[in-house]
Amino acid sequence: MTLHYPAPGASPASIQITREGRLKHFLTIEGLNRALITEILDTAESFASMNDQSVKKVPLLRGKTVINLFFEASTRTRTTFELAAKRLSADVLNINIGQSSAVKGESLLDTLRNLEAMYCDMFIVRHADSGASQFIAHHVAPHISVLNAGDGRHAHPTQAMLDMFTIRRHKGDFTKLRVAIVGDILHSRVARSQIHALNILNTGEVRVIAPKTLLPAEVEKLGVHVFHDLEQGLRDVDVVIMLRLQKERMQGALLPSEHEYFQLYGLTEERLKVAAPDAIVMHPGPANRGVEISSRVADGPRSVILEQVTNGIAVRMAIMSMVMGANPGGAA
Amino acid sequence: MTLHYPAPGASPASIQITREGRLKHFLTIEGLNRALITEILDTAESFASMNDQSVKKVPLLRGKTVINLFFEASTRTRTTFELAAKRLSADVLNINIGQSSAVKGESLLDTLRNLEAMYCDMFIVRHADSGASQFIAHHVAPHISVLNAGDGRHAHPTQAMLDMFTIRRHKGDFTKLRVAIVGDILHSRVARSQIHALNILNTGEVRVIAPKTLLPAEVEKLGVHVFHDLEQGLRDVDVVIMLRLQKERMQGALLPSEHEYFQLYGLTEERLKVAAPDAIVMHPGPANRGVEISSRVADGPRSVILEQVTNGIAVRMAIMSMVMGANPGGAA
Amino acid sequence: MTLHYPAPGASPASIQITREGRLKHFLTIEGLNRALITEILDTAESFASMNDQSVKKVPLLRGKTVINLFFEASTRTRTTFELAAKRLSADVLNINIGQSSAVKGESLLDTLRNLEAMYCDMFIVRHADSGASQFIAHHVAPHISVLNAGDGRHAHPTQAMLDMFTIRRHKGDFTKLRVAIVGDILHSRVARSQIHALNILNTGEVRVIAPKTLLPAEVEKLGVHVFHDLEQGLRDVDVVIMLRLQKERMQGALLPSEHEYFQLYGLTEERLKVAAPDAIVMHPGPANRGVEISSRVADGPRSVILEQVTNGIAVRMAIMSMVMGANPGGAA
Repeated sequence: MTLHYPAPGASPASIQITREGRLKHFLTIEGLNRALITEILDTAESFASMNDQSVKKVPLLRGKTVINLFFEASTRTRTTFELAAKRLSADVLNINIGQSSAVKGESLLDTLRNLEAMYCDMFIVRHADSGASQFIAHHVAPHISVLNAGDGRHAHPTQAMLDMFTIRRHKGDFTKLRVAIVGDILHSRVARSQIHALNILNTGEVRVIAPKTLLPAEVEKLGVHVFHDLEQGLRDVDVVIMLRLQKERMQGALLPSEHEYFQLYGLTEERLKVAAPDAIVMHPGPANRGVEISSRVADGPRSVILEQVTNGIAVRMAIMSMVMGANPGGAA
Repeated sequence: MTLHYPAPGASPASIQITREGRLKHFLTIEGLNRALITEILDTAESFASMNDQSVKKVPLLRGKTVINLFFEASTRTRTTFELAAKRLSADVLNINIGQSSAVKGESLLDTLRNLEAMYCDMFIVRHADSGASQFIAHHVAPHISVLNAGDGRHAHPTQAMLDMFTIRRHKGDFTKLRVAIVGDILHSRVARSQIHALNILNTGEVRVIAPKTLLPAEVEKLGVHVFHDLEQGLRDVDVVIMLRLQKERMQGALLPSEHEYFQLYGLTEERLKVAAPDAIVMHPGPANRGVEISSRVADGPRSVILEQVTNGIAVRMAIMSMVMGANPGGAA
Repeated sequence: MTLHYPAPGASPASIQITREGRLKHFLTIEGLNRALITEILDTAESFASMNDQSVKKVPLLRGKTVINLFFEASTRTRTTFELAAKRLSADVLNINIGQSSAVKGESLLDTLRNLEAMYCDMFIVRHADSGASQFIAHHVAPHISVLNAGDGRHAHPTQAMLDMFTIRRHKGDFTKLRVAIVGDILHSRVARSQIHALNILNTGEVRVIAPKTLLPAEVEKLGVHVFHDLEQGLRDVDVVIMLRLQKERMQGALLPSEHEYFQLYGLTEERLKVAAPDAIVMHPGPANRGVEISSRVADGPRSVILEQVTNGIAVRMAIMSMVMGANPGGAA
């Protein structure tokens, strides 16, 4: 399904915040202010402590209906949202909307109207097209909140927030940190959202490390320092964020072989030595072991990859409860 | 899977009502009395007001297990039943029974026996064969209630009930109304159930408007006035119910092209002018815009199509709670 | 997905019991002691009485997350586990893990690590390879319990437990019973688990009845009496357990035609006459009527097949609540 995104003038940044400054949708990190990002992180902290408890459930979203609208399959991401919603006591419906609406030629907007009419409260949207969740947020009824679970190459803001949460837990103050993002920046919605978040949080230095073919044009304008050499880029960094290499890229002209890529940009223990002694290593998962990261690093003492997964539940619970709390007050 | 329906003598009308006159199954509108239909509508009113509340959930079916037995795929209809059940606090299991039982050659009756043995309480049945839900109701254990979510060309009684609910909310007294049903009456289980309901509710005049090829033989015996001309049929009606045109029909000899059909039977604002000034327009969805209805009408001020969707939840909650309440007292 | 099972020295029997002797995982019947099996049966009794109640739900696992990890499709078995978990008030996620992890080349262990990191509490594992659930139990974090829902030809311990529960309800004391298991012993994980359970419970005599091609080598070492003739084997037995004949076996050289098999090993009323007058007939389902069992027997007065299904919920609730209760105290 191809979407066309009119929404002239209505930037995702403006559409996701109510006039009172509260979170209504969660579509992109771009344009959020530091106070709001910090509020999300603080709220997530309160949920994170809950995971250890025997009963990991709070009634905050009891009676609310959350719809997983996944146009692009991702069991992994769907599962984290489903778990977060259920731990808030919401009812969750998984709808493979592409499949479903295609059968009877129902248009996307008609499908949205129908789900709205059933008094659903939240749509979790994942779509291969950039801007899809923004398009949907622009068109939904005022009582609905939309969360972006990944749209094309555009944004994956909940992933970026769980990364910020993980960094803050380990490192505290962002202003003194050097953070390097390594890999396919060009195609990565994760990287785009991370760069926005790191800059809003006033991170000391944000670096991207990649071959030229995997960097967007004018990437410096995003507020990053560019490195093409892994060891130079890793020097003295406090946080290393590895990106997943989409193997499809190999088949195009963008990349040499997996083996050659690992030689140049794969993270090994040896290479990690130039980073700060207490540097942490992150990856949004699932990692291609032996391609962008060695198993020793992925499973090693500096890796916080599994903490990221754990934190993903708390961060999504925080965002879900915040957009629902925003409903009574404001409107899109 | 082809079913054979013996059940001689046991009409759906008789099987769905207990000796005490309470609702045990909900298979067809045919044979219900006005008091019971009115009780369903009144019960639905009490649930409809709940939709606006922050917590849209009541514990009426807590601990009950509802099984969606969909032999015919319909995400849309399944979703409304699943939502209704969850808002009554029931546990819901979706079983693609055709797929599942086919794998190991298990017969339908064995599957039913197994689900019964697991102490499930309600089966929501959708099947391409007319009479399927009646067959199942005839064979299930006494503690199970069966709801027909559409069987072949036979009936779609919950759809008809939500339509009656929508009409009553807008128009009140049925005895003074002129209601026109437009489109493929021949193949429509929705139309069949609507005609029964309208007549039981003593509707002033029920009209069907369709080309001869899309009308059942002796359709007048159902208690309707037949029109082949759209404008004649729409004159002074208070309610216009458009049917979905199954595009498959186009490929047979039954219909001309979509374009030609729209010229003759498509509902436009222009044509709607001959109806009563406050006429409402209904459609069971999903609408084929530009085939049976123009987008301007579907999205226009007279359309109550999305209200129908909303009302569908309340009406299904009402029927579900009534058949469960009927369990202690009666038996099929 | 092919698994390799190292776990040298760590037998399933030892891995599933904590140092304090409580149940941590439930992987196999082999190696359990009689007291523990009896505790499971007794606990199941308390849940069985619940099925009759209007609200079939207890809050024992509220806030717990149960993951159905089915590498091998089985709607039927998945449904029983899902129902059992929901009636304990757990949240249930169904993950087709084979499909899911295959998409992005994620390895099984990475998938497990991720689900653990999301603070899931229990994995229900079904896999075509023998030893899969043991492998997973060996590798999961200490807070996770693993239940084997069938692994290759190895074990199906919850099925065996519901069978023991059904036998005990009808016959009481195992020490005086003659029990015959009939059919494809060679390929049956069910039979293997049943034989272990019957022997641990000190069953008077355990018989297997099958053609030589469907018996494992040295089957006598399992503690059974072997019969190749159905009538000889059924003589004076109190319990007849029929196995499902996998029709795939017919295509190999192992078996003659279905018809011929039924002539030799199919259970009919006539043949059942040599058994004890009050013998009960069991089958794990779904039965191949006319292949291993006649419909008259399957639906007849001696059949307890549907009771087995009912008991399956109570037994799985018992095991689930026991492994969760074991968590605070012990470790794998």
